[in-house]
Parts: sequence; C-alpha cells; structure tokens
Amino acid sequence: MTAFRELWDQLAPIGRDPGSGGYLRYAWEPAELACRDWFRAQADARDMPVEEDGNGNLVAWRAGGGGPAVLTGSHFDSVPHGGAYDGPLGIVSAFLALDELPAKPRKRIGVAAFAEEEGARFGVPCLGSRLLAGVLDPDRAAALTDRSGVSLGEALGRRPAGRTDLLDRVGCFVELHVEQGRALDVPVGVGSAIWPHGRWRLDFAGEGNHAGTTRMADRRDPMLTYAYTVLAANKEARLRGAHATMGRVTVEPNATNAVPTLVRGWLDARAAEGEALRALVEAIHKRAVERAARDGTELTLTEESVTPEVAFDGGLVTRLARVLGAPVLPTGAGHDAGVLSGYVPTAMLFVRNPTGVSHSPAEHATDADCAAGVDALARVLDELA
Amino acid sequence: MTAFRELWDQLAPIGRDPGSGGYLRYAWEPAELACRDWFRAQADARDMPVEEDGNGNLVAWRAGGGGPAVLTGSHFDSVPHGGAYDGPLGIVSAFLALDELPAKPRKRIGVAAFAEEEGARFGVPCLGSRLLAGVLDPDRAAALTDRSGVSLGEALGRRPAGRTDLLDRVGCFVELHVEQGRALDVPVGVGSAIWPHGRWRLDFAGEGNHAGTTRMADRRDPMLTYAYTVLAANKEARLRGAHATMGRVTVEPNATNAVPTLVRGWLDARAAEGEALRALVEAIHKRAVERAARDGTELTLTEESVTPEVAFDGGLVTRLARVLGAPVLPTGAGHDAGVLSGYVPTAMLFVRNPTGVSHSPAEHATDADCAAGVDALARVLDELA
Repeated sequence: MTAFRELWDQLAPIGRDPGSGGYLRYAWEPAELACRDWFRAQADARDMPVEEDGNGNLVAWRAGGGGPAVLTGSHFDSVPHGGAYDGPLGIVSAFLALDELPAKPRKRIGVAAFAEEEGARFGVPCLGSRLLAGVLDPDRAAALTDRSGVSLGEALGRRPAGRTDLLDRVGCFVELHVEQGRALDVPVGVGSAIWPHGRWRLDFAGEGNHAGTTRMADRRDPMLTYAYTVLAANKEARLRGAHATMGRVTVEPNATNAVPTLVRGWLDARAAEGEALRALVEAIHKRAVERAARDGTELTLTEESVTPEVAFDGGLVTRLARVLGAPVLPTGAGHDAGVLSGYVPTAMLFVRNPTGVSHSPAEHATDADCAAGVDALARVLDELA
Repeated sequence: MTAFRELWDQLAPIGRDPGSGGYLRYAWEPAELACRDWFRAQADARDMPVEEDGNGNLVAWRAGGGGPAVLTGSHFDSVPHGGAYDGPLGIVSAFLALDELPAKPRKRIGVAAFAEEEGARFGVPCLGSRLLAGVLDPDRAAALTDRSGVSLGEALGRRPAGRTDLLDRVGCFVELHVEQGRALDVPVGVGSAIWPHGRWRLDFAGEGNHAGTTRMADRRDPMLTYAYTVLAANKEARLRGAHATMGRVTVEPNATNAVPTLVRGWLDARAAEGEALRALVEAIHKRAVERAARDGTELTLTEESVTPEVAFDGGLVTRLARVLGAPVLPTGAGHDAGVLSGYVPTAMLFVRNPTGVSHSPAEHATDADCAAGVDALARVLDELA
C-alpha cells in the first residue's frame, strides 16, 4: 500500500453516508471533529505542536529556521453528500509532503485545517479564513445560526477571536486542492486566479391556497416564478459564458395539495470578471421580476456574499509553474486561498480530476495523481522553505 | 358572544404557529391529540359516549331510536400552516347542531372526527376513512412512515383495525366543510360531486456537481427539468380547464454551491372527469420526459394515489337542497365524504369562503356564515334523523 493510500484510508470512513457514499462533514459537528482528532494525532506523530487560532482554524507547526513561515493546508468540512477529496486532500498531502522534506527546514512550515470552508453549516463560505484575515466581523460571525438554530458562538464555544498575529508570522500560503472541472490534462497544475462569484437569495412570495379548489386564474403561485427563474438563470449564464446554479430551495408549506406561500431559492453565480458577474445577476433578476408581475407574486433579492476576482501572487505562480513545469489555470471555485491571498502571497496547486465531478460522492482523483500532487507540494515547500 | 364563537375560540390556540398564524395539527401529534381531548370533553358534556374504531377515528354518539344512524363530522388535522376552518368547522358545527335538536332524536346521530384527512403526516389523504371503509390495507397503512421515520403503527399504538361494523350501523353521512374556492354566493351550498384527483411523485435524477467549476455544457442538472415541468404542468392545466399544482419539492443535497443529484417533486392534478385527468398527467409527463432528454437527466413518475370521480348520493343531494333551498355545486377537493360515499349514502354542506383561500392561514369564513352552516346542518340532521 502506498503512503498516500494508507493515510487516505484513515479518513475515508469518517462522516461517510452509507446511502449516498458522500460525506456529511459539517464544521464542529462529530464527523468534522473526528477529522480534527485525526489531524492532532498526525501532528503529534511528527512532533508538530498544534496552534488553535481562536476562530476554529488549526495549524500544526514543523519547526524551522527564522523568518516568515510557509503555510499550506486546506479544510475538512464538506458540502452535504460531498466528495472525499475536496479539502482533505490538501491536508493529507501536506503531512505526506513534510515526510519527504528535511526534518528541520530553513523556515517554519505550518499545516492548516481551516473551519467551515464550504459554508454548509452557517452559510458563509471560507468562514474560518475570513475570520483569521479579519474580513468577517467576529460578533456578526458569532451570531450566525445553523439550520437547527445553533449559533456559531455556541458551536465554537466562544466569540471568534478574529484577526490575530498568525498571518503576520506567515510569508506565503500554498493550498493544494483537487481540481473541480476538467481543465487539467496532466496530474498537477498551478492556480492563477479565482473567478468572482457570489450567492444571492431569492424570496418568491405568493398566496398559499388549496391545490384542488383554487381556479388556475385566481392563483398567485410563487413556484411558477421560481421555476421560470431557474430556467432564466441557466439560459443567461450559457449566453454569457458564465456559470449560474440554483441548487437549493425551500418551500412553505411544502405540501402536495397546497399552492405555496413562499418559495426561497438561492442563486450561485460566477463569471470571469466582476462586471460580467454583475450584469449576469442583473439580467436574471430582471427576468424574474417580469415573470413575478405575470404570476402576481413578489420577489426580493438579497445578496448573501460576493467575492471579487482573486488573482494569485504573480511572482509566486510563475515560480511554482517553473519549479514544477506545470500548466497554469484559473478556477470557478472559492477557496481559503482566495481569502488569504489578500494578506499573504498565495498560490494553489490543483490535482487532476478525471471526470470534473465535484461536490458529489462521485468526485475522484487517481492515487497516482494524488501521489504526484504530494511530490509537487513537497518540491514547492522545499523551494519556498 | 355567539354559541359558535364561544366554542370556536376554544380550539383556536391549539396547534397555531405564532409566526405564520397557520395551524400545525398533524395526526396523533400533540396539537391534534389536544383537539381530540377537546372532542371527548364536548361529547362528555353532552352525555355522548365516544367510540374509537381502532383506526384512530372517533365517533361521539347521541342516543336515539332504532335503525341505521345518521353520521356527521369531519377532521382536526391540517396541512402545514393550514387554515382554522378546513376540518374543525365540520366538527364544531356538528356539536352545535346537536344542541338545536331534540335530546332524543328518532335515530342515533354520530359526530365523527376522522384521522389524517390531509395526508400531511403519512402521505395518504383520508387515511382514517379509507381504513374504516376497508379500501386501505391495514398492514400497508401500519408501515407508512412520517418524515421522522415514525410508522403509523407506532403513532396509533397498534395495527389499524381496518373495516369494522361501524359503517354497517350508519344509514347516511353528511359532512359540513368550509368551501375552498369562490363558487358560493350564498352562505351554504350542497355538494354534488368531487372531481377525480390524484398525486404523482416525479423523481428527477441528474449528476451532482460543483456549481463553480462545472461547465454549463457538462451539466446534467435535474433542477432544470423540474423547473420546466412545473411550468409545463401549469400550462397544460390551464389549456384543459383542469388543475395542476407542484407545491412540494425536496432536493439532494440542497446546497447553494452544488448542482443537485436528485430533485423530487410532487404533482397534484384534478379534472372534471377521469379521462381528462389521465390525459392531463400524460401530457405533463410527456413534456417532462422530452425535457429530461435535453438536460441529460432521468425522470421516474410514480402514482401515489388516485381517487376517481365521486358523485354524492343523488337522492340525498336533492333532498338536502330542497330542505335548505340551497344551490348545488361540485368541488375539486378530496374529503372523507368522498371515501365514505362508496359505502353509505353521503352528501356534503359547504359554508361560503369569501376569498376562496384555503390550506393557508388566510382561510376564512364569517361568523354569520358559520352560524348559518350550523342551522343548515341542524335542519338536515332533523330531516334525516
């Protein structure tokens, strides 16, 4: 068994749903806490003390010479029924890369596990790294609640610490991640940028009514406006070479024999540039409002989060691409690296995804490509530290 | 305070959601059980012994002469966030009508509270009356589960009894119910028929994927097929003068940043005749399948329940309309009366609904119309018993 497979198999059963085969690892819930226990055990086995930053992020430190440290790592949490690789691959690869390096590098090297990268529990993606970077107010974060009404402050057991001196001790950050499209035709690539992206909530309000007795002409059915908007979002994104997804919806009362009172949908939109993203969301909103007028429903659009385009550190990207002889590519996915890139020189490594499937139980990377990712990360850390 | 308002206000707070103002009364859950306690107290106050039929249905008996009894009543359970009138009005009106009749009528009169009429907990509407009539297998019913995985057998505390001799002791059944459309322009009408109607489940299966990184052209997004089908169902129903509603949906994983794996929608369809209903569902299914081929998704259609057209007892309907001088009208809503009409001569009384809103917190009938309903029911019971 390869070193990668041996370590990988330790994480595989944690939080895996036997039905879907996907992962249910939500920040600070039992499966994700079990991953953190595994992290501490791996750090202990390598004599790496673990620092908790007061925001739920963990960093295991390999001792080294002076100067700013080199940080690597990723996250454990998943989307509901997500894949095995998105997040954990970057942490497992980091420990394995350290095993290939000298026991005491020229600089300190940290392996990070960031909290709530997917936003699946509290709704804000990259929550841990946003707190660490100081771009998310700790009081606002503490008050965020999950679907059961538990607040982040309760889950964390404290008010988040927010910005600390941790980033001041870091000279650069490199996150290794499974690729999430089909853009790579070699095992490893270097990330150049993250598309601007955001989440918008659309509340479609209508008039609840009886499905059997209400004449079609008398209805104000918000499900119709929602459905039209789903199709309009798809069409607008295709026309513009952008991405739009409406993958989450809740309905009140959500009964078979009732016209809904309220349909709440979420729009995930991404485009190559901020201006294109803004135009995409405006076009979808305009079409939804027009349809709402026809349906007699009302639409409220709420921006939940928008992340501007992130260009990773040009010097760092060029250096890594040269060291690895690897291609450079952008991504449509948000990452902790995107948040941290505003504060420390940052880059990413992507490991090939043969089908491009991600956020799904079918997400996959071959063991050979994962091993190539570990080697690449080891060479990068050796170069930087 | 009128007799109606006094009794009505006793039920008003039970199971009312302070947020929506609607009712959450699900069969055998605390709010509905509290309604049953109220029922037993009302029966006790009138010296009416209560019979439980082994299926969760209650009947309070007013003693009377020999021969087949006259049964009236309705149900307590609601759709999620439903209105106050749908169901309870028929039970409250029955007790009040009895108060206007002689202490010992010529025939026994029963006031029934049927279980799970809405199907909101176990998914089968008119569950109690179907069991009583012997049209639903008790073992199949016992195995039905609610959204928490609790079986009906567990909720009821036993295997349902199924058909008993109760209906053999009944000569006719009259259910008073709030009207659920805007078809009445006088306080009370007599029901003639129930449109054929049914529920179909549509499972749209696609490929779960990452919302940010998956190219639009590479997607197999089942939300698109669902959305198209919602609009197609509405259009087909309008074209045919029928009713189609898709008011319930569940999504896996239902995450903002994931293309769904599975979208499950429910279709409620109703038409004036069985043939028209069949053609409507076929037309919707055909359009959904065509769209699924475009989206690369797969659609499975499952018939959950279909209720053929119910024509109430012609002689009884004519007699009640003559006694009351009231108009006769059909309805698109299913009722326990529709189930029982196959076994005993059955009719319905409808109380005017000024807005036609039903299955919603805004469902309403005026106190004056409700009092007229009580008087009409008293005259009908006096005529029949």
